[in-house]
Amino acid sequence: MNKKALAILMRARMRPNHHANFPLPPISNDVNQLLSNSNSQGTQSGSNGHGNGKLNNQRSFEAVRESMHSAISMHKTEVLDSVLNDFSEGYFSLSFENRKKLLLTLAKEYDLNRTQVRELIKQYLGLQPPGNEAQSGGVEDEFSLTTFYRIERNLRHSLKPVYETLFERINSHPEGLKFLTILRADILSVLVEGNIVSLRAMDSNLKDKLSTWLSPAALELHQITWDDPASLLEKIVAYEAVHPISNLIDLKRRLGVGRRCFAYFHSAIPCEPLIFIEVALLKNIAETIQEVLWDHPPIAESEAACALFYSISSTQPGLAGINLGKFLIKRVITLVKRDMPHISDIPSIGFHTHSLTSVFATLSPIPGFMPWLLSKLASQSRLAEAENVSCSSADNPGLTFYENVLEPEEERALIDSLGDLAAGKSGMEILLNVLTSTTHEWTDSDKLLSALKPPLMRLCTRYLLQEKKRGKALDSVANFHLQNGAMVQRINWMADRSEKGLSQSAGIMVNYVYRTENIEEYAQSYFSKGHIHSSDEVKQYTQPLAKNESKDSLG
Amino acid sequence: MNKKALAILMRARMRPNHHANFPLPPISNDVNQLLSNSNSQGTQSGSNGHGNGKLNNQRSFEAVRESMHSAISMHKTEVLDSVLNDFSEGYFSLSFENRKKLLLTLAKEYDLNRTQVRELIKQYLGLQPPGNEAQSGGVEDEFSLTTFYRIERNLRHSLKPVYETLFERINSHPEGLKFLTILRADILSVLVEGNIVSLRAMDSNLKDKLSTWLSPAALELHQITWDDPASLLEKIVAYEAVHPISNLIDLKRRLGVGRRCFAYFHSAIPCEPLIFIEVALLKNIAETIQEVLWDHPPIAESEAACALFYSISSTQPGLAGINLGKFLIKRVITLVKRDMPHISDIPSIGFHTHSLTSVFATLSPIPGFMPWLLSKLASQSRLAEAENVSCSSADNPGLTFYENVLEPEEERALIDSLGDLAAGKSGMEILLNVLTSTTHEWTDSDKLLSALKPPLMRLCTRYLLQEKKRGKALDSVANFHLQNGAMVQRINWMADRSEKGLSQSAGIMVNYVYRTENIEEYAQSYFSKGHIHSSDEVKQYTQPLAKNESKDSLG
Repeated sequence: MNKKALAILMRARMRPNHHANFPLPPISNDVNQLLSNSNSQGTQSGSNGHGNGKLNNQRSFEAVRESMHSAISMHKTEVLDSVLNDFSEGYFSLSFENRKKLLLTLAKEYDLNRTQVRELIKQYLGLQPPGNEAQSGGVEDEFSLTTFYRIERNLRHSLKPVYETLFERINSHPEGLKFLTILRADILSVLVEGNIVSLRAMDSNLKDKLSTWLSPAALELHQITWDDPASLLEKIVAYEAVHPISNLIDLKRRLGVGRRCFAYFHSAIPCEPLIFIEVALLKNIAETIQEVLWDHPPIAESEAACALFYSISSTQPGLAGINLGKFLIKRVITLVKRDMPHISDIPSIGFHTHSLTSVFATLSPIPGFMPWLLSKLASQSRLAEAENVSCSSADNPGLTFYENVLEPEEERALIDSLGDLAAGKSGMEILLNVLTSTTHEWTDSDKLLSALKPPLMRLCTRYLLQEKKRGKALDSVANFHLQNGAMVQRINWMADRSEKGLSQSAGIMVNYVYRTENIEEYAQSYFSKGHIHSSDEVKQYTQPLAKNESKDSLG
Repeated sequence: MNKKALAILMRARMRPNHHANFPLPPISNDVNQLLSNSNSQGTQSGSNGHGNGKLNNQRSFEAVRESMHSAISMHKTEVLDSVLNDFSEGYFSLSFENRKKLLLTLAKEYDLNRTQVRELIKQYLGLQPPGNEAQSGGVEDEFSLTTFYRIERNLRHSLKPVYETLFERINSHPEGLKFLTILRADILSVLVEGNIVSLRAMDSNLKDKLSTWLSPAALELHQITWDDPASLLEKIVAYEAVHPISNLIDLKRRLGVGRRCFAYFHSAIPCEPLIFIEVALLKNIAETIQEVLWDHPPIAESEAACALFYSISSTQPGLAGINLGKFLIKRVITLVKRDMPHISDIPSIGFHTHSLTSVFATLSPIPGFMPWLLSKLASQSRLAEAENVSCSSADNPGLTFYENVLEPEEERALIDSLGDLAAGKSGMEILLNVLTSTTHEWTDSDKLLSALKPPLMRLCTRYLLQEKKRGKALDSVANFHLQNGAMVQRINWMADRSEKGLSQSAGIMVNYVYRTENIEEYAQSYFSKGHIHSSDEVKQYTQPLAKNESKDSLG
């Protein structure tokens, strides 16, 4: 079979669904739960493809509920594999509606025994808490201490929801962890439909449990290469959430010379990469994703001076909110450093603004930029209409909530670039119209492009550095890298011209840089003070605004 | 280097301590904690051999206490590797006395905040527990429900000792799990010196945590072969707790043709087998350990009809009480079955009493038999003296607690075999004297051997099948196999003539058999009713007693 034929074959098989079109931030990936089920089919042991409820023999809700009850109520020393198998097979055979019903039953009927809690609280409050065990320790003291600790322990146990026991039992079952991630993905899907307090509490319990079980120490790093089984490579293709892998040649390129791909695995979720990162070894920090994906032939690895993380994808919707990427990046930096010491040894790499002592950088999407900007533009338009502001006028300081996000010269340049088409419209209206066009015609007009670049680069910088939620960067990818200790190094214009890149962030991408000597310091100041480190180059984009502000207040 | 020279070299290096002389039951192995430290030296990453407190630069207690405090009190999002590294290195540098002091500090000063607990209890008791969320769910209801779950969650969290946070942080640190097993081994060593209630409570907390983190799903099974690194094989030699490996040839034999050795590993405790099992592929269920250890040349594997588990050793004293062996045996049975289907296919293997449909058997020590028998004999002697019983008389039914453990004919045969040496002594006194001789001369006298065999085989059967503690078999190895679903198949006379075999169980060994089709049923009836399944052959040893009892009551 020739290469092309194989590529076509692989492409057809590799992408059974439209998964890669989801505009997902790399970490809080909430791919729909059907995908996860169909992908899990191949790996569920001992079962004949029970992953998809619609294709297999369905069991009655009551039967599965019964088997769940048995799994929970067995004596702990009697936990039988067969009972847990029966429950997991039954669960997978249920329709989504019945899974939902079962999860609600679990959350409500297998919660705490609150009568027992109150009884134990009464006993507990009647006891004297331990004072100075060491000094006064006699036989009687030891007895009352023992009683105290026992009651305290009982109280702690009684506050543990019954379903936690079920989660623990499933976890100790072979491949139970995989089942639990699917269970959690289902819980999250139900919660998307509407908030149910008891189910939310169960989700938070399960998330805590999954966090400990998936502690980085229990994960194994594996370098994915072209020698790995097709069944694994197929998953890399299916799960790649940032820059879709278009065909076999593209995949081979990402695993070949000058490229690395590392994934985290857990032994209880075999053959399933939980999160993976793609790295390009380059001469410089790339400015556009095109140079990364299509630099053919690649440079010799010995000439590389930069390890660029250009894609991080988490694969399990049921692990949403559990940050595996942080440890992955740390591990990969250590590995690449060991493997290619010259990457961190070269003090300057000819990067035009800075000399970097160590070049571990990213070329990252900014998934929240357009949603943020468009909603800002739309709300300002509505506000302007409502308050009857003359739309073509400049910023009106009399209106408290109204803010022209464009500088006067930016607005002028934009209106000029459109000529008659702009007639009677404000800069913000024009911007909103231009950016919401689904065909992105603006990218074909040089005039429009040069008028749009200054405001979009400035606003994107503002979005990345200044827009926050609970003290953290609003953008999920930014927040991810900043909490891991990166800094914002450079904003790149027209860095991703794909449909996805244009809709997410008007084609702008950002380089975060991990300076190994500063990672912990930066992570800490971001956590404690919300401080975002950025290069002078990036800071410059925010300068004009400051100048204008002072101009405004003077004029 | 010739084989012998290499063997001598290896022997010298392989056994740096007298570890293998401990008469330990395979599971609750409490090898002293120094061994575990010295073994861990090689695997502690990034540290230059901090495993042994006495050899390295010692740090002050206060400095380590400070670094422990930092590790506990950091904000959770700020947990720094360096702080945890510093604490673990500091801990390893402490003397045992200082470790003890630190553990007590941890147990007492980083327990609960009991003022906060009482405050939250007050809040909790003031709230209405949730009723029927679904029916009455309005906005206000959702609000009060959310509050209720929040307070309940806070109460649950406040009841979690502060040191639990430290354990969780260490666990997520690379190789932290290894550190925690050493920490627990130290706690157990302190508790051996004397019970300290708060430390006992901390131990129970840590044990629970370790149990979840070491869930069988997180463990990896690896077959140990002669191709494994010497550093790993060295550990197999050092940790073998049942039948010491005497030299390199012995080791090579145990990994060669007709033998299997499987170990469980955890990715956070690299290069460290947590528990391992040795299997011999034989024609029949072996009756003596000599045939297993020295059947040279081995039979062809295709002729094997029995997989005999002849040694199970757990290696980490800090994992005492966590049953990893149960899952190991199950996994190994599955593996061997897949590998050698004829083992379970042959319906009869010519075994003299039974035809077995599947032959997975053990040849196991009975570590508690001699201690039990000797203490019984000693206490009966004391009782007899105290109550002024004529020692040479037969059983006196008038004395409530006095019981002649020997049958009249057994006692007669024993006295006869000794001739004049027995003058004026009771059978039990003779038995006590004979068995407590450290040189085991009785094994050299055929006369004595044949007089001792009937009572010892009978008493051993009684010990295995009838002596219980909280409804479970008194013998730790018996309890281990019975709870895993085995049955008692055969008792073997003079099956282990080693010093250790003679002192533990007068040389008697037992074959437990795992019948794959009955494993779950047997495990369950043992758990729920304490029922011990045994073969008819074994049951016969308990028959004479019943006959004699009825004879006595008639005479």
